[in-house]
Amino acid sequence: MEFDTIAAISTALGEGAIGIIRLSGDDAIAIADKLYDGKKRLEEVPSHSIVYGYIVDAPSGERVEEVMVSVMRAPRTFTREDVVEINCHGGLMSVNRVLHLCLKHGARLAEPGEFTKRAFLNGRIDLSQAEGVMDLIRAKTDRAMNVALNQMDGRLSKQIQILRQALLETVAHVEVNIDYPEYDAEQMTHGLLQEKAQFVIQEIDKLLATAAQGKILREGLSTVIVGRPNVGKSSLLNSLVHENKAIVTDIPGTTRDVIEEYVNVRGVPLRLVDTAGIRETEDIVERIGVERSREVLKKADLILLVLNYGEELSSEDEALFQAVEKMNVIVIVNKTDVKQKIDLEAVKKLAAGRPLITTSLLRDEGVDQLEQAISDLFFEGEIEGADVTYVSNTRHIALLEQAKTTIEDAMGAIEAGVPVDLVQIDITRTWELLGEIIGDSVQESLIDQLFSQFCLGK
Amino acid sequence: MEFDTIAAISTALGEGAIGIIRLSGDDAIAIADKLYDGKKRLEEVPSHSIVYGYIVDAPSGERVEEVMVSVMRAPRTFTREDVVEINCHGGLMSVNRVLHLCLKHGARLAEPGEFTKRAFLNGRIDLSQAEGVMDLIRAKTDRAMNVALNQMDGRLSKQIQILRQALLETVAHVEVNIDYPEYDAEQMTHGLLQEKAQFVIQEIDKLLATAAQGKILREGLSTVIVGRPNVGKSSLLNSLVHENKAIVTDIPGTTRDVIEEYVNVRGVPLRLVDTAGIRETEDIVERIGVERSREVLKKADLILLVLNYGEELSSEDEALFQAVEKMNVIVIVNKTDVKQKIDLEAVKKLAAGRPLITTSLLRDEGVDQLEQAISDLFFEGEIEGADVTYVSNTRHIALLEQAKTTIEDAMGAIEAGVPVDLVQIDITRTWELLGEIIGDSVQESLIDQLFSQFCLGK
Repeated sequence: MEFDTIAAISTALGEGAIGIIRLSGDDAIAIADKLYDGKKRLEEVPSHSIVYGYIVDAPSGERVEEVMVSVMRAPRTFTREDVVEINCHGGLMSVNRVLHLCLKHGARLAEPGEFTKRAFLNGRIDLSQAEGVMDLIRAKTDRAMNVALNQMDGRLSKQIQILRQALLETVAHVEVNIDYPEYDAEQMTHGLLQEKAQFVIQEIDKLLATAAQGKILREGLSTVIVGRPNVGKSSLLNSLVHENKAIVTDIPGTTRDVIEEYVNVRGVPLRLVDTAGIRETEDIVERIGVERSREVLKKADLILLVLNYGEELSSEDEALFQAVEKMNVIVIVNKTDVKQKIDLEAVKKLAAGRPLITTSLLRDEGVDQLEQAISDLFFEGEIEGADVTYVSNTRHIALLEQAKTTIEDAMGAIEAGVPVDLVQIDITRTWELLGEIIGDSVQESLIDQLFSQFCLGK
Repeated sequence: MEFDTIAAISTALGEGAIGIIRLSGDDAIAIADKLYDGKKRLEEVPSHSIVYGYIVDAPSGERVEEVMVSVMRAPRTFTREDVVEINCHGGLMSVNRVLHLCLKHGARLAEPGEFTKRAFLNGRIDLSQAEGVMDLIRAKTDRAMNVALNQMDGRLSKQIQILRQALLETVAHVEVNIDYPEYDAEQMTHGLLQEKAQFVIQEIDKLLATAAQGKILREGLSTVIVGRPNVGKSSLLNSLVHENKAIVTDIPGTTRDVIEEYVNVRGVPLRLVDTAGIRETEDIVERIGVERSREVLKKADLILLVLNYGEELSSEDEALFQAVEKMNVIVIVNKTDVKQKIDLEAVKKLAAGRPLITTSLLRDEGVDQLEQAISDLFFEGEIEGADVTYVSNTRHIALLEQAKTTIEDAMGAIEAGVPVDLVQIDITRTWELLGEIIGDSVQESLIDQLFSQFCLGK
């Protein structure tokens, strides 16, 4: 395919030692040459080499930066197009000035994800691999990163292709029978259809079995801390954050109080929700109102319900237990450093079999057990292993579920003795649905929308 | 010099499209080879080339990242040592894992500024150039960046070297006279000394004349917005920030409410002090207490004093004028959209010749004039020009001032007829002081301290 030449800042924004401006497209090298001043012209240097020089503002010849420029010619590049990376001294001003000069000399500002989109459109990677690239960047734990890496490497794609191949062979076989009815192999075809459909269902089930964990690894275990005022919610928050080096993410376009904090608890990415609220008022309910609190609770994957060891159970505590019924809850009885007033037996009853941890956050006691409980909860029914291909992306999960439904429909139809040429419709649909995962047979608008969620410069 | 091999993440932290781990030292390539898996070993690839491959965790062979690796052999590198840059998919996890593997295989985690320090210790750049590198990264406006670039390029160094050369020649001349007193050229020597000293004083004065502007370009014009509640301080803040794309800097190690916001007003970097305070309580005095407010005001380079067009001048307003006496003040009478109640003549009297702007921030009126006033105030007595070498660094300014004092002492001594061999002491001291600017004759502890202020990975 042929595209115009795009440019973007490809390193994270901030004061860094190195900042990179990336160009991709037919004119990447020619445009870079207009702003580069070095021993040789970039057009003359061999592919995949690095040269030293200056970025200059053309008419005045004023030096803007001292740089190292990487020249990589198609097709051995990230986008399969000519790529130039201008490696400068970091700093917000300098990367912006260099980018500005690229645009002035004919490059277009890249949209978010546009480099990866080109890698996809130029056939270097498929859609699920492209999505893996972004997941890799966003990964919050080692395990999450491994899932993304495998996906980027094409492991999920390979699985999907095996399934699609099986479906395609079946369709081809059915076609033969329809075209040459004289063979009258209807019976055999039914048997084959059944066998192949069973195989596909079984493999989709294997993939979907990883979905719950995969999704949490990808998106984080959305966790809410609740409890009455003064039970130690913010101590709990601080202890989780300090022991696990939180990654604070400011959600773009929102005010400062909507902050997501991720902590890595033994490989489980905990996404701590509304931590600003806890920090500031010690009470999520007080701060965001009862109605919204219930919504926040509903969306949570995990509730950490904190009680006070030094106080009797109150009706408020009991109301909290009611509010989190049927949810994933770990009950924490904090402040074992003070005199016991709480009735632990009553707490056990309320916990109803859910994990119950006693802590003294003041004395740093019990945090290990809490982390173990979180990890146990998450890795219950452990399916991990080097051979497992995880599905982690909501889009993929939804498509797999739809594919499963259509192939099950086909299966039912076969069993009901429906003619094979009708069954074929469901099989083809299954084949298409699986194709959407890897970006075969997807609409352009979906592609645009997917890549727009990428980060700038990728 | 010989050093161990260091490694660090050299891109800004955050979710970026590209993250770079940089290695420098004799073993840089050998260490990178231990974690790199590609077509060739890095040892075999030519210098200044880029190769594609994977980062693997050695014993298990598990793939950790898909990377492009740049191999640059000494001496044509940033540090003058062998340098390897591992260009990976960005993301906090992946850069950290790759860095971790580098450390596991024998690299040491670089201290802040250690790459640049090596460039200095290995003689590629001098100390003022190294400081220019950091200033370039931190520059908040184009003008500030140009000052840093020139310094990095060695322009200040060259000036300093010319002065040192002049001093050295004088000393040599004096030495000759002392060693061969039979020539008895005392009179001539005095004349020469005087001429050279005058030249040095004159050149130091030229440099110091740029110091005030240079320092503001480098550090930002520390600006405080004051005024009674409800005069529109936070509107003013927002309008400055929105029109000029603020760069928000969280000061490391402090809580979130100490935030510095930089805005670029026509090339002048305004550092808005205590903006969080204004945002949250609309009143700096109310929030941080009268005593601390006075301190904040004292340290400010510029005060924006806001009055209400729709209210009469109050005794509080007058107290504000008293508090900012002798400071750089721009008086802003805001809310011209309401009925006038303020006595503008009285305001003019209080302003006492300082710029007075009327605005309606609600209607977006007067902001241009305000920005012009800020720019005028700053570029008053414009000394800018392509030929001007700026001094911007407080350390350099202090050394220049000391050098000026010692050479003036020498000058006085000459005029008083003091013997040349005594005058020589002051001249040598001047030569040493100027040398400290470029890192000649500086103590190791100072060097360590200077580089420790650099950012990581540089």
